[in-house]
Amino acid sequence: MTYTAQMLDTYPAEINLEHDRLSHVIDALTSCAQACTACADSCLSEPADELPRLARCIRDNLDCADICTATAAVLSRHTGYDARLTKAQVEAAIQAVKTCGDSCAEHSDQHAHCRLCAQSCRETERALKGLLPLLEPSGKGAQQPHRAAPQQGM
Amino acid sequence: MTYTAQMLDTYPAEINLEHDRLSHVIDALTSCAQACTACADSCLSEPADELPRLARCIRDNLDCADICTATAAVLSRHTGYDARLTKAQVEAAIQAVKTCGDSCAEHSDQHAHCRLCAQSCRETERALKGLLPLLEPSGKGAQQPHRAAPQQGM
Amino acid sequence: MTYTAQMLDTYPAEINLEHDRLSHVIDALTSCAQACTACADSCLSEPADELPRLARCIRDNLDCADICTATAAVLSRHTGYDARLTKAQVEAAIQAVKTCGDSCAEHSDQHAHCRLCAQSCRETERALKGLLPLLEPSGKGAQQPHRAAPQQGM
Amino acid sequence: MTYTAQMLDTYPAEINLEHDRLSHVIDALTSCAQACTACADSCLSEPADELPRLARCIRDNLDCADICTATAAVLSRHTGYDARLTKAQVEAAIQAVKTCGDSCAEHSDQHAHCRLCAQSCRETERALKGLLPLLEPSGKGAQQPHRAAPQQGM
Repeated sequence: MTYTAQMLDTYPAEINLEHDRLSHVIDALTSCAQACTACADSCLSEPADELPRLARCIRDNLDCADICTATAAVLSRHTGYDARLTKAQVEAAIQAVKTCGDSCAEHSDQHAHCRLCAQSCRETERALKGLLPLLEPSGKGAQQPHRAAPQQGM
Repeated sequence: MTYTAQMLDTYPAEINLEHDRLSHVIDALTSCAQACTACADSCLSEPADELPRLARCIRDNLDCADICTATAAVLSRHTGYDARLTKAQVEAAIQAVKTCGDSCAEHSDQHAHCRLCAQSCRETERALKGLLPLLEPSGKGAQQPHRAAPQQGM
Repeated sequence: MTYTAQMLDTYPAEINLEHDRLSHVIDALTSCAQACTACADSCLSEPADELPRLARCIRDNLDCADICTATAAVLSRHTGYDARLTKAQVEAAIQAVKTCGDSCAEHSDQHAHCRLCAQSCRETERALKGLLPLLEPSGKGAQQPHRAAPQQGM
Repeated sequence: MTYTAQMLDTYPAEINLEHDRLSHVIDALTSCAQACTACADSCLSEPADELPRLARCIRDNLDCADICTATAAVLSRHTGYDARLTKAQVEAAIQAVKTCGDSCAEHSDQHAHCRLCAQSCRETERALKGLLPLLEPSGKGAQQPHRAAPQQGM
């Protein structure tokens, strides 16, 4: 469906991560960002007496959308890979989908868009948590960040 | 695969666009943004003697990624819909995928990532061009923007 | 204050726009994006009986923030400049700050954050409208996009 | 100059952080995002024999721009504040400006845009590190995230 997996396969240098897993994480993040943007907007169109209790949910949606988009971009780049940066951003994304998933889960019974968005957040959280231990340990990375791309010898 | 179509179906007010078509456009945009981000990075990892001729392609990739992401977000919102804004942003996105698709097409024979990215740009261009005439004419919109969401009467 | 003007002055090729004007536009856009993000959030924290009438304002804030951010990024790039793309994105931004400025202006008396945000939108609209006629006409650009950067001869 | 400080002062609920410090951090982040976007583009327009050694710098610029933009947005929101999320994203931003500042610093003698961008990254790093200890400890936040906004009792 998406080009993510194909783009990984045509990257002109080595990527030290399983392509299938990585493309799954990126797709989960972009899909979650869209779901969060749409959920925030759906909340805004709920009836007036419902809207106030959705304010925190909207805020969490907006943070989650911004953070998932940034994280998907970081994970889509492999030139001059720095494990410390990737790790820190993946950890922030795990917290963002956790916070947003929890907020949406509180409204899952009343609002189908919150139920779907919570589901997307949980899937993305699982995908990110599966990726995290595979990222180079920050201790090693801090010494000598791995450079996947051919410009390293220049 | 993505939640886009389901999120449209659970929006709590009316959306004056065919859901299938709209979700296809949004998915094309988010997929194209990712392909462009990945293509820019793949270009950066090409051999030193190849890189200079890819500078414009990288620039076009970056613009296209930013514009597709913003356009997908705009199209994911339906509360207080303003046809003039949607139309103007869709037109900018059509130009962005055209410019980037042309740049990548120049390198399609040498670089598989450019070939894939050009393909994603062309698909997104077709999807956006199919949507454009269905957006309310700006003349009418300028007078009285359609408000899809229930807050209009407040 | 910001680095925008200094970054323009150190760009290694020619930029066919007055640096002062361009840096003013970019700064207006990034400032407006921040104001819109903050205004959306301030609206979310207004009292429950006030919130429903702010739903459209929040939506317009979110669109405006996304579009201003993307437009600032496009205007910050000069390599392989394509006037058609820049023009289309600037036109979309003019509509975004117009739509959002109008929404916020409706609430300027009740909410100081809306008053400030409307002011930022109007300033940005003026700055963008001052830039628009200086961008190369799309007709000429369509034939042969101007390429400011040194890679054009490659 | 920017509206950041004024927007904080008109937020309709309490913000548990010094406004001056917070607006300084947000302004540093948006300014750094712009500098990084511009530096990546300036690198792309350097002469062909210079470009390959800038590939990693460009990549770090792009990550840093994306992460600074997302972090500025998160810090601009106060409704339903979750310290764990803010902390994790600020930590990711500290790493992003560190990585990018280091990359740009390697080229500061040859390229004025890299020197300026490194300077912006270092300033932003200092600002973020000054903010980090003031964010509520994640342990406490994990139990019972502080909710600044009035919707908490709903």
